[in-house]
Amino acid sequence: MGMDARRWTLSKRPVQTPEPSDFFLEEYSIDEPSVGVVNVRVEYHSISLGISGRLTGENHPQSVPIGGVIPGLGVGVVEASNHPDFAVGERTIGEFGWATHAAVDGKTLQKLDPQMFDEGVPSSASLDILGNPGLTAYFGITRVAEVKSGMTVLISSAAGPVGSAAGQFAKVLGCRVVGIAGSDEKCASLIEQFGFDDAINYRTRADLAAAIAEKCPKGVDVYFDNVGGETTDAALRNMRMFGKIAVCGQTSEYNRNPPRGLREIGLIISHRVTLQGFVLYDYLQDFALARAQIAEWMREGKVRHLPTIIPEIESAVEAFIARFSGTQGARPIIRP
Amino acid sequence: MGMDARRWTLSKRPVQTPEPSDFFLEEYSIDEPSVGVVNVRVEYHSISLGISGRLTGENHPQSVPIGGVIPGLGVGVVEASNHPDFAVGERTIGEFGWATHAAVDGKTLQKLDPQMFDEGVPSSASLDILGNPGLTAYFGITRVAEVKSGMTVLISSAAGPVGSAAGQFAKVLGCRVVGIAGSDEKCASLIEQFGFDDAINYRTRADLAAAIAEKCPKGVDVYFDNVGGETTDAALRNMRMFGKIAVCGQTSEYNRNPPRGLREIGLIISHRVTLQGFVLYDYLQDFALARAQIAEWMREGKVRHLPTIIPEIESAVEAFIARFSGTQGARPIIRP
Repeated sequence: MGMDARRWTLSKRPVQTPEPSDFFLEEYSIDEPSVGVVNVRVEYHSISLGISGRLTGENHPQSVPIGGVIPGLGVGVVEASNHPDFAVGERTIGEFGWATHAAVDGKTLQKLDPQMFDEGVPSSASLDILGNPGLTAYFGITRVAEVKSGMTVLISSAAGPVGSAAGQFAKVLGCRVVGIAGSDEKCASLIEQFGFDDAINYRTRADLAAAIAEKCPKGVDVYFDNVGGETTDAALRNMRMFGKIAVCGQTSEYNRNPPRGLREIGLIISHRVTLQGFVLYDYLQDFALARAQIAEWMREGKVRHLPTIIPEIESAVEAFIARFSGTQGARPIIRP
Repeated sequence: MGMDARRWTLSKRPVQTPEPSDFFLEEYSIDEPSVGVVNVRVEYHSISLGISGRLTGENHPQSVPIGGVIPGLGVGVVEASNHPDFAVGERTIGEFGWATHAAVDGKTLQKLDPQMFDEGVPSSASLDILGNPGLTAYFGITRVAEVKSGMTVLISSAAGPVGSAAGQFAKVLGCRVVGIAGSDEKCASLIEQFGFDDAINYRTRADLAAAIAEKCPKGVDVYFDNVGGETTDAALRNMRMFGKIAVCGQTSEYNRNPPRGLREIGLIISHRVTLQGFVLYDYLQDFALARAQIAEWMREGKVRHLPTIIPEIESAVEAFIARFSGTQGARPIIRP
């Protein structure tokens, strides 16, 4: 593999928002794999704000050491393998870091069905609608919320990778789908690109509950919750009897101390609402099944993967830092 | 029936806490029943704080008019019937008010199995463990929480009529049961009279979550929630993975504006907790089945009905007013 392998490492700990000088683009070489190890050429890797604490925090349980590779989930092709489950040329998902190549323990890799990919199903989707965001949406919609045809489904953070997938899956299953997002551009994209029935820009609607009532005149059967707080209370004011809330994330609460909290619990009783938290990895044994279903929908043109792909590893830091300032659009994917 | 029938009526609207002069004990007579009507001699009636709003509020949707009978659920024996479903001598539950006798629409009555009552199963239990409180506890424990043998079950407002029944049913089903109550006397009664495994006096434990951890060393599988707010957050900090919260009431939140709210939603996600609101009347078709089961447990000595019975209608107002001041013990039942 030689010296053309490159990866971003941590040169010093960010104080608050990371700066370019906190990172170093290192050249390195990868050895022949020892027992159990798989060498992968990274096709795409994601950049996630979720790793911030691991960079800044020396005492974080998964703190990245100075000189360590910046973490990031990736999809790649096996270039050399010393693990019985992986052959050269196969595609896998794994924690490869912000890197062009990685040598990883085969036990940590998710195998991908090579038949799954074609013109309609590019491998970059493995980090988006076929990856953790898409699988989270899939199991939240099908197993937690158990949506049925004809239901009204409300989705918060709808323009994010999980929300846009959840809305598309609910549409395929025959639901009326309304998204909540933070700009008119995102709302337009939900309707025009992802096929949502309607969308609400929460920044321009002072009374979110009234906006939901207007867009969901029959009430909400299922609320896919990425946000929590006021947004969930506004959804609760519009839930139908025996409605379900799939609790996926609570972005509005993470930086509040104390949190605002969920206040409309009386409505959970009077409307017999079920609120259920879930975590993707409980469905690990069904990942392959779900990926096959999603890929089929992609091939049939029923759901779309519309990534923002940044085509060089040099831009990863810049793209990461940009995520801290303001508008959180679709998460870009790096092609290193 | 003659002039010995008596009932409490509203003489003027209470301003804040009701006063004796707001009520009037009226003598009256009951006619032969017209078509569809059943005349009942009331054996016992309950007094509930839940009716306060109907007394004070002129604009309350179910406001009691001046001169109207004070509402209260009762159990009684049919004395005359003009309804095909009810025969003289049968027992029924209905909205008879605070009264010795009542003439009511047969459609509003719940029929009781006459075989159910004997020495071990007195009819007063129809307002307690065999009535709405007991049925609420039964369906919350068996259908919403779906408790299984070996689980740890935590119950708030455990000394109340719903909580004490819920705890007893969970014990019969093989669970470890811990109650939360507001005095040492109540805690002692939970353990000694109702067979709870342990109890927590929340007024003397500054850190409720730590107290729960101590009493539920394996964590909480099921939390039967009558209280909400801080109590539910303390329970959430102790929930086991995939635990369930049956949301029955939210007494801590009813008089708060804004409510404190449920703040530990992050734990609902990480611990895959399901929180489900429920209302007794969703299980109407299974009331008879549930009553038969509870009566059997009573006869076997597995669950207990320990009412505070006040043996004259004259004391109903006094008992009602006493409920507003301080210690909310077991709800007394009036034998008019």
